[in-house]
Amino acid sequence: MDRDPECIFCKIIAGELPSAQVYEDDLLVAFRDIRPAAPVHVLIVPRQHIPDNNAVTEADAELSARLFAVVPRIAAAEGIARDGYRLILNTGPHGRQEIPHLHMHLLGGQRMQHPMG
Amino acid sequence: MDRDPECIFCKIIAGELPSAQVYEDDLLVAFRDIRPAAPVHVLIVPRQHIPDNNAVTEADAELSARLFAVVPRIAAAEGIARDGYRLILNTGPHGRQEIPHLHMHLLGGQRMQHPMG
Repeated sequence: MDRDPECIFCKIIAGELPSAQVYEDDLLVAFRDIRPAAPVHVLIVPRQHIPDNNAVTEADAELSARLFAVVPRIAAAEGIARDGYRLILNTGPHGRQEIPHLHMHLLGGQRMQHPMG
Repeated sequence: MDRDPECIFCKIIAGELPSAQVYEDDLLVAFRDIRPAAPVHVLIVPRQHIPDNNAVTEADAELSARLFAVVPRIAAAEGIARDGYRLILNTGPHGRQEIPHLHMHLLGGQRMQHPMG
């Protein structure tokens, strides 16, 4: 599994930094954002160090499928499946990506307050 | 391929309503949002009528993989790959989902102006 020794998410995944974990499997780890932007704010993160969405190809099919498929399960566990949620995946400076390790934000618990864009 | 006769996206995909299409393959169609929230605002939409992310499972692996894998290609074609972009997938009322047919928003062309949540 690729790892970047300087990456904060790689350190969390390796257990070298603490996190409030809500899910894990062989491909993914999910934990709460330390600066939540909504009542529920979970980060769904591949164990593998992929820098951003530009590096995702169809060779990552199993990972991509798992990323989408775990969302309803985590949403149900967090009690937000029925009322709904927003998924956000930021790439690069225009996307305001902060950590250069692919991750998906799962936001819910209230109606999203900000428009897109 | 499942279709909902009342669904505006199913009608666009069938060519019964116009759209400014930027990409298509056997699983997906991508076209410009008619109310863009950023200089580039493309909707990436499965041909199959899946109502929302809660209905996506690992049985949709090929579709999920394709959804992620086409993003860098469309971003490159739109000239936003290097500066970056934001992907948003809204589910249900809290997510402010407007069309009940699974779709991913690809937003770019400027730094995102709104925070998440």
